[in-house]
Parts: sequence; C-alpha cells; structure tokens
Amino acid sequence: MNSGFSSLASSAVLRGQQFLIRSLGGYSVSDITHQKKRMEAVKCSSGGASLEADAECVLRAITPSLDPRRHKGQAGNIAVIGGCREYTGAPYFVAISALKIGADLSHVFCTQGAATVIKSYSPELIVHPILEESYTISDVDDEGRRQITKKIISEFDKWIERFDCLVIGPGLGRDPFLLECVSKLMTRARESNVPMVVDADGLFLVTNNIELVMPLLVRIGGVTILRKRKSDLISDGEIVQSVSIYGSPRRCGGQGDILSGSVAVFLSWARQHISETEREKTLSRTSPIVLGCIAGSALLRKAAALAFEHKKRSTLTTDIIEHLGQSLESICPAS
Amino acid sequence: MNSGFSSLASSAVLRGQQFLIRSLGGYSVSDITHQKKRMEAVKCSSGGASLEADAECVLRAITPSLDPRRHKGQAGNIAVIGGCREYTGAPYFVAISALKIGADLSHVFCTQGAATVIKSYSPELIVHPILEESYTISDVDDEGRRQITKKIISEFDKWIERFDCLVIGPGLGRDPFLLECVSKLMTRARESNVPMVVDADGLFLVTNNIELVMPLLVRIGGVTILRKRKSDLISDGEIVQSVSIYGSPRRCGGQGDILSGSVAVFLSWARQHISETEREKTLSRTSPIVLGCIAGSALLRKAAALAFEHKKRSTLTTDIIEHLGQSLESICPAS
Repeated sequence: MNSGFSSLASSAVLRGQQFLIRSLGGYSVSDITHQKKRMEAVKCSSGGASLEADAECVLRAITPSLDPRRHKGQAGNIAVIGGCREYTGAPYFVAISALKIGADLSHVFCTQGAATVIKSYSPELIVHPILEESYTISDVDDEGRRQITKKIISEFDKWIERFDCLVIGPGLGRDPFLLECVSKLMTRARESNVPMVVDADGLFLVTNNIELVMPLLVRIGGVTILRKRKSDLISDGEIVQSVSIYGSPRRCGGQGDILSGSVAVFLSWARQHISETEREKTLSRTSPIVLGCIAGSALLRKAAALAFEHKKRSTLTTDIIEHLGQSLESICPAS
Repeated sequence: MNSGFSSLASSAVLRGQQFLIRSLGGYSVSDITHQKKRMEAVKCSSGGASLEADAECVLRAITPSLDPRRHKGQAGNIAVIGGCREYTGAPYFVAISALKIGADLSHVFCTQGAATVIKSYSPELIVHPILEESYTISDVDDEGRRQITKKIISEFDKWIERFDCLVIGPGLGRDPFLLECVSKLMTRARESNVPMVVDADGLFLVTNNIELVMPLLVRIGGVTILRKRKSDLISDGEIVQSVSIYGSPRRCGGQGDILSGSVAVFLSWARQHISETEREKTLSRTSPIVLGCIAGSALLRKAAALAFEHKKRSTLTTDIIEHLGQSLESICPAS
C-alpha cells in the first residue's frame, strides 16, 4: 500500500492535487492536562484495521478547549508564503481559513503588488510585502540581488520563531528569483523546526529541488502526503488513512487553499497536544501531522457539504469559508 | 428572416446590444453517457415551427450533472479579455457570473492598472495583468512595441489551450495598441479552436477588422448573433430562435456582461455534451453555440426577474448576479 501510494505521489498529473506536509520534529513539550485528549486521538486513528479514519473523533480529540486564561497566539499563529503579481486569491483563502477555524493570528509573506490587494480583501490578516519578482529587479546586478535576498531572509527571520506552521506555495507563481528566495526561507524554517504545508507552486519548487525535503525523510515526522480526491488519502510512509465523510460535487478553484489553511491549524493543535515523548511511550504510529491532515480534510469536506446545501452549483470558495466555523462547531462545540 | 436578421446585425445603433458568438468546430469527443441529454436538447430547440425556443428545456438538457468523480476545471474554465485604465466593472461581472453559474475557474486578462482593482473585487478570479495601453508605452519605439506584443502573446499562449471559452471585449476600451494586441490574441484562440463570445468594445474591434471573423463564416459553428432586446433573438445564419420568458424592465448597465459570462458557460457545456459527430448523426441544425445562447439568455432573464421582485428600481447588476444560482437551481436542480 505504501509504495503504491508513493508512486501515485510522483505522478505529474496528480501533483497539483497533492500536499507535501512536512514536519521537522521539535514537538512541543507535553502538557499533562491534555493527556486525556492524546489518548482519545490515538484511539480514534489507530484502533482498527480500516483504512477510513474516524475523522470526527480525531477532530474532537485535537481541537483545544477554549480557556480564558490563554493568551493571543496560543491557539495558533500561522503564516503563508505566497502571493505575487499574478496571484492573490490563493494566499488570502489559506490565511483567512486559518483564522475562521480558530487560529489567533494569520500572516502572509508576498510581493509588494500582491500585498496591496491581499490587504484589501481583509483587515484581519497581517501582510508582509517582502518578496521580489525578477521583473522588479531586472536592472539589479548579481551583488545587488544577493543583498536583496539577504534582506528578505533577515525580515523573515524576525518572525519565524513565532509561527506554529508555515504554508508554502499558494499563489507563489513560478518566478525563478522569487522561488530561489523561498527555498532559502524553507531552509530557515527547517532550522527553526517549524512544520510546513507545501502546496500548489510550492510543490513545483520542491519537485525541482528535492533536497529541500530530503533531510526530513530520515527524521520523525518526515514527509506526509495528502492526496485530495473523492476520498482523501493521507500517508506518512508508515500508515495510510482515508477520509471519505461529507464532501461536495462542486469543484470550484480555491478549495485546496482552504485545505492548506485547515491542515496548518489542525497540525499545530495536534502537535500542542501530543508530544513526541508521549508518542514514544505508546506504540501508536499516528503522528500529529497525520492527525492534522485527517482533521483538516474532514473539516473542509463538512464545510463544502454545508455550503453546497445552500448554494448548489453557485457555491464559491468564499461560501465554503463562511461555513468553516459552523462545521467545526457542529462536530466539536466550543462550550 | 435570415437576411433580415443580418441587416439588423449590421446596424451601428444596435451594435452594442448584439453579440458575435464565434465558434471554430473542435467539438469535444462524444461521451456516450450524454446521449440522452443530446436527444433532449435537439427535441427542445428544433421540435416546432415556432420562433420561440423552449429555453428551460434547453437549459436542463445542456447543464451537466454534478459528479463527485469529476476534477477541477471539467465544469468549465472561462477567460475574459478586457479591463483597462478606464473600465474594470465589466470584465469582473463577466468572470464572476461564469463562476456563479457553475464554471470551476474564471480568468481575466487585462492591463496592470485594471488588474489591481479587479483582483480586489474578488479573490475568486485569476487576473493576469499582461495587456498594455498606448499611454504606458509612449516612449517605446517600434521595435520595443513589437517585443511587448510578442511577450503579451507568449504569456497568453501559456494558457489558451486550457480554456473552454473566451469572452472578448467587456471593458476593453478602444486604445489602438491594446486592440491590435487583442486582435492577435483572437487569432491565436482561433488557431487553438477555442470558441469566443465577442461583446462591447470587442464588437468595435471586429467591425473594424472583419477579417477576424471572416474565415469562420464558411466553417461549422461560424458566427452566431445574439440580439438583446425585450425578446432576445439568436441566429447562426441557418435558424432563428427567440427567448421571451422572464425578464425585467430595469435597464441598469452591466446586464450584457452577465449575459456574456452566462453564454460562455452554457456554450462550453453544450459543446461538451453534444459532439460534432453526434450532431452529424442527426439532421438537427441546432448548433451547441445556439443552444448556449438560448440557455444563457434565459438564465439572465430569470435572474433579472427575481432580482427585480426584490429590489425593484434599485436593482443593480450585482443583485442580478446574486440570483444566478437560485435561478439555475429553480429550473435545473443540482441534485
């Protein structure tokens, strides 16, 4: 099963429908009060021989309780690297979805031109116009480009330690200079043990620079792949799980961006609740990353189903985003 | 009747209310499962001597069933060429209408200045800021202009094969350099057998460069004309059909843009469901383009009627767009 899945993963045709979800260990220290939740999560996802995950159970297990004593940021601080001259909708969809699910803060790192537009979509996002595309620096020599790259990395370095998860790729485009900078930012994120969800043009970048994820293959967490289809499939190379509940027949563009944002939030929550030490104590092979993918997939599918009930063929990505909150509440009430 | 219609078509006064809807064969390969739908469509539109089409019947026949096994793009990938320094609303109305009716993806090719505004209207659209107007290149010599034109064509070429239909003209303006580029893009689309809906300033371009559509007159599909009035009239030179159902007395600007987007989606669906081979097997003279015009006209009229019921004199184009989904659902339920 595992090798079959890997072979699917390498098909160019399916590349756009897949996610590489990468984690670099560094799981947060165990919080003893969440031991019960951990037990639930392990039970949900590894209890049977069935490929189908008990996604609602996973979702309830990893979603943190709301506690008035907690501070801004503790429910998730997510960042998207994407948004260029051509694309602005995709990074917006990722970032706003993360907030609508329950993250406290959502950032976008993009080019100057994209930043103006993304800011205009919503005042809720923190948008950093730090990236550059080749056409804006066509008059700059090699030394100048090195300086620009250095400045971009330095701006990014101010923030990286604060993020629970990065989403790399939605609306990134394929400009060579921009992609070269982003590959350097990915290296910094890896050094800081920040997990990454890689999608869209980020997959183009990774498939052309496989060394960006190679070191991860031998570490706990490694690379997890989520294949979006009629039934979603998730594998970390050790186990395969499917999510088939809910879903909608509408295929409007942008749903993959909601999924990226959703997975980013849930894997952050799963990592908070299930520490590496605890995982080693059990024999469970279900990583927090896989749990995050199961929950992220299930929530998108639920929201898409609810939006379709109301809007039918007219359903757009923004309609689905508007149903994220209600969907989570119906599975896992806040109080 | 046919020559009378052509003479109406050449009147300058009526030009703005007409569409040249051009198709260049290339009908998609027959899907045997849609044979029933084809039979229905043929029966709807060619069954009687009456000029009035059974528009609801056509609409139901060509609208594809929603199937969870289908992929993003299969329900339609539409592109608009329009949007300049002066106009941004029209191409937005076309592109968002296409999505609200059920297309999966909707693109706009426009100038840089228009792109920022159109993107900010909605994150759902993919907006390509590739066109240039004379005022932005006033310092550029002939060779420079040739290079710019070449680059525009090259950017467009990356995308053209993916589109099911192009809409040319809404918000295009009349800048000579821009129109010259667009006439070249139309030639590329024709070479790629992508059908085009020509409206607004696109009609100005075509009437001043009639060679852009002349080669089409001798091919199947050829030129179809849609005249928007109290009763809409549609002819491909062989048959004439009218659509008089529904409608609203409100004449706010922008309804023609909804019609362009609506026709683009329905003619794409009609071409998917009724292959050329199948058409030849029957003696029906009703082309998928005519069927698309009938359906597109009927849906706009229904949505305009519903919006007018709610908003009366205050009805705007955005109100009508908000009723497209409900209108289609009432005629042709999604499930």
